[in-house]
Order: sequence, then C-alpha cells, then structure tokens
Amino acid sequence: MIDKLIEKIIATNNPSVIGLDTDISYLPNEMKNKINSLEDGAEQITEFNKNIIDAVCEIAPAVKVQIAYYEQLGVAGMKAFSDTLKYARQKGMITIADAKRNDIGSTASAYSRAFFSGVEINGKRYIDFDSDFLTVNGYLGSDGLNPFIKDCKEYDRGIFVLVKTSNPSSGELQNKTLTEEDGATLYQQVAKLVKDLGKDLIGSYGYSDVCAVVGATHPKEAETLRALCPNMFFLVPGYGAQGGTAEDLKVCFDQKGLGAIVNSSRGILCAYKAEKYKGMDYVKAAYQAALDMKNDLNRVRG
Amino acid sequence: MIDKLIEKIIATNNPSVIGLDTDISYLPNEMKNKINSLEDGAEQITEFNKNIIDAVCEIAPAVKVQIAYYEQLGVAGMKAFSDTLKYARQKGMITIADAKRNDIGSTASAYSRAFFSGVEINGKRYIDFDSDFLTVNGYLGSDGLNPFIKDCKEYDRGIFVLVKTSNPSSGELQNKTLTEEDGATLYQQVAKLVKDLGKDLIGSYGYSDVCAVVGATHPKEAETLRALCPNMFFLVPGYGAQGGTAEDLKVCFDQKGLGAIVNSSRGILCAYKAEKYKGMDYVKAAYQAALDMKNDLNRVRG
Repeated sequence: MIDKLIEKIIATNNPSVIGLDTDISYLPNEMKNKINSLEDGAEQITEFNKNIIDAVCEIAPAVKVQIAYYEQLGVAGMKAFSDTLKYARQKGMITIADAKRNDIGSTASAYSRAFFSGVEINGKRYIDFDSDFLTVNGYLGSDGLNPFIKDCKEYDRGIFVLVKTSNPSSGELQNKTLTEEDGATLYQQVAKLVKDLGKDLIGSYGYSDVCAVVGATHPKEAETLRALCPNMFFLVPGYGAQGGTAEDLKVCFDQKGLGAIVNSSRGILCAYKAEKYKGMDYVKAAYQAALDMKNDLNRVRG
Repeated sequence: MIDKLIEKIIATNNPSVIGLDTDISYLPNEMKNKINSLEDGAEQITEFNKNIIDAVCEIAPAVKVQIAYYEQLGVAGMKAFSDTLKYARQKGMITIADAKRNDIGSTASAYSRAFFSGVEINGKRYIDFDSDFLTVNGYLGSDGLNPFIKDCKEYDRGIFVLVKTSNPSSGELQNKTLTEEDGATLYQQVAKLVKDLGKDLIGSYGYSDVCAVVGATHPKEAETLRALCPNMFFLVPGYGAQGGTAEDLKVCFDQKGLGAIVNSSRGILCAYKAEKYKGMDYVKAAYQAALDMKNDLNRVRG
C-alpha cells in the first residue's frame, strides 16, 4: 500500500494528508443549528466531510480520519466514520484510520479484522471500517503488531506505529535513554522494532508498509529518525494548529522529497474561521488552505 | 468510582471481572447458525452477553467489555457494545470499557467524552458508550492522560493505565531499564507517572481512581509494583486462557485481600466447551466457571 500512497503523492505533487478530525464545534453555524441529537451531529459531520473531500480530492492524496471525534457521537458517529472512509475511497483518496489501536495478539487480530481484513461469515468477508492505513501504538511489543503486519501483506495495507508523538509531554517516556540499548532512547528503540518488523514489506520506492508517526513539533528527533531509518515512511502530525512549521519538518523528507506525508486537520477544516480566508465559505476556504499547505511543503522539500 | 468497585467486590466476596470479549466463534452452534450478516452477528452477541450477565450479575462485581470484538462487526457491533454496557449497568454491575485509548490532549478529550462525559448538545449530555472505567495507554505521557483524569474527578470514573501487559512480548519495551531513572524499568516509570497523576483521587479504601493494568503472567513484576504503589488498584488480565494461575497473581492483592480485580474472558464465555463443564449449556457453564474462579481467587488472597 505504501507504493500506492507514494504514487498518489507524486501524481498530485502534494505530500500532505487532510485530517478529518471533525468536531461539531468546527461546523458553520447553519449546520450546527440543525443538530439536536447524536444522530443529527453524525449526519451534519458526514455532510461536512463529504464537501471537504469533494473540495480537496483532486489536489490532495489522502485523508486521515481521527476515530475519537466519531466515537464521541456513539453508534451514529461510527456510521459517520464508516461513511466518510467509504466516500474518500470512492473519490480516489488513500484512507488512514487514525485509531492508535493496541492490544495483545488475539485482540490485535480482532482490530485488524475491523480495519483491514473483515469478518468472515459463511465464506463472505464483511467490513465497515475498511482503511488503507491504520495508526497503532507499540507499547505491547511485537506480538501486538504482528497481526496487523500479517494483514498488511495479505490485504495490501499499511500501518503507522507511534514512534515520536507531537504532543508537549511526548518526551516524558519516549525520550528516556535505555541502558541496555547503548544510549538509544525509547522512541529510537520503537523505531528499531518498526524497522525490523517491516523489513520484508519494502516496496518499489524503498519504503516499507510498516511506517511511523513522527511529530513535526520535534525536528531534532525527526532528523535522527530519518537518518536511522531510510526505509521508514513518516506520517507527520503537528503542522499548523499544533505549532510545527514547514521548516521544522523539512528533515522528514528524503533527497527526492519523498518519505513523509504531513497532516493538517484544524488548519483545513476551520480555515473559514481564519482572517486569511475571510469571506470564503468552509469548502472554498478548505480548498485554498489545502493548496497553501501543498505550496508551503513543496517550498521546503527537495 | 474505585470505592464503588471495592464495595462491590466486598459485597460479592469476589475479586473477579467477567471479560465480554465475545467473538462469533465463541457462540454455540444454534446461535452461529442464525448469522448471515454483521447485523445478525451483533444481535446474537448481544443476546449471548445478556444471558451471561444474567447468569453472573449476582456473584461477580464487574464486566470488562473488550471493544475490538465489537468494532470488527462495524456499526452494528458498536451498537452491541453500547447495549452490553447498558445492560450490565442496569443489572448493577460495574462496567470497564477495555479500549486502551491514547492520543494527544485534544483527541484524548474526545475519547473521554465518548466513554465518560458525553457530548453536550443544546445543554443536554448525550453518550452511547458510558462506562465506569476505561483502559488507556500512557505512551504519550501525562497530557494524553489528563483529560481522562479530569473527567474521573468530575464524573466519578476511573481509568486503568497499561503498566505491565500480560502478552509474551510485553518485556520488549516495558522491561527496558531507563538510564535517567536509577535503574527503574519503563513499566516502573509508567507506574510512577500513574501514581503521580492519581495522588489527588485516593478514595476511602486507600486506592486511587487512576489504576493500572498488570498482567497475571508476570508475577515478579506484579510483586514489585504492589510494593512500589500501595495506592494503585490493579486490573489483572492473563488468568486462565493466557496461562496465569491464582498462585501467580496472589502478589497483586494487599494484606486485606483487596487491591486487584482479576479478569477472565474465554475461560467464562467458552466454559461450555470445556471437559470440566460437559453437559451444561453456555449459561450454566459460565455461571459455574465464574463461581469456580471466585473460589480459586479467594483461596489465595489474604
């Protein structure tokens, strides 16, 4: 699946992903005013997402759908999550389910069925949350990741394992030095695990289907990781609303300008609220913000 | 919420939790035969769960509902998850949503709304996955945990943070020594973080609402943690199907026989398939297995 993502990045000349972390509070008032229940909320969010996807599908390669914002709307929200993924795929976009799943082997297999392989009933495969990529958390070690990796091979999918996250307190554990590992930090050790687990899934651009999440807010760590893991593709959150700039994340790209895809969520979805895009409706503002992001990233990558 | 859980453990004289990790493959043939879609699967699983809850609600204090097994059945599965939680609560049981959620602060807040505080629409709170406790993963550090802890205070809830997990590869990262922490391991450092974050939420039995997951399959680590963290209540997976015995997890309890609740999932749900409970239907077998587990645990705790 990583080859397909890279081909799409090349075709659109755009290394960015549109984050659909759609909260009710992001919607324009005329949509908010129609909401009197979780079902209404899920319906308006689905419509909002579809309009955003229509606006950006020609210029951006992928969407990242953050499941927490749908889960908070309950069962109806999960339907909105499913419908959003389906619509993005229908419009030719690569889909990333941002769910940071993690568990013991047998349970990780159930999660992998939820997002990748589906449940078999009387010989037929059923799946509601079908995604090209899934984010996962590696705290449980390799046997919590292997079920996903098995399905990456069998069903042509990819995973992004949390290596160095974008949040302010990410260093509390991730930047600790491991005595047994000659001064490697925890995030570097997770990167090593990801590298080892992904070595048999390297595609034609030199990148593996087993990828990493590396925050734009930590450029020093990103630079270290880029050098340590030449076959590891990065999903880079933290650009825009969280404070990361294009200059910060320049180090995530390789010499060909590949190797990373940068996410923006609020910066696109709420663009219509920004001074810069004043007078535009949310669809036009999102399109313009996505275009500005593309140009900003292309300015810095090789 | 930890006080309520402990009171329920005392009232039932039972430190165990029934794990509803209900997979279609666990159902008896007459239920499996009715399944031709995800919706059918979700319906049969809901019925199965309700019958299990009816069987154990008088003798066991709590259920743990593993969300992965519902998510794999898509939107209908999430309705089964919601209905199972509601039914267990209605029957007076404490509910633990086993979802191991983790993300940056703003997203962790959305997860906390999903399970604890609900979404506010026109001044009214709506929530489908209302749970007393939630399992979470601490890899992102304190700002990914604080939104849950805030809601633990405001809405009387509790969290179980993954400290030392029960799976075979849990040591790959969790047992590494941290150079900056005088020989403390990663799992001990997570425990320290959990301890610090929970110090203002200690209830009348001396335990905090901010609790830990500690696997029954690692008794040495459990013993260390029990000594290091006297105010930390443990959720102990790994008993039964995963290989942990009552003798292994004896060290999780304090001198009064409190301080831990032990989970069994397959051992209860699939009891009817075991030689020991031959001839019983799944409801009777689950009841008997839950009773046997209670007696087995009471044999070893103080």
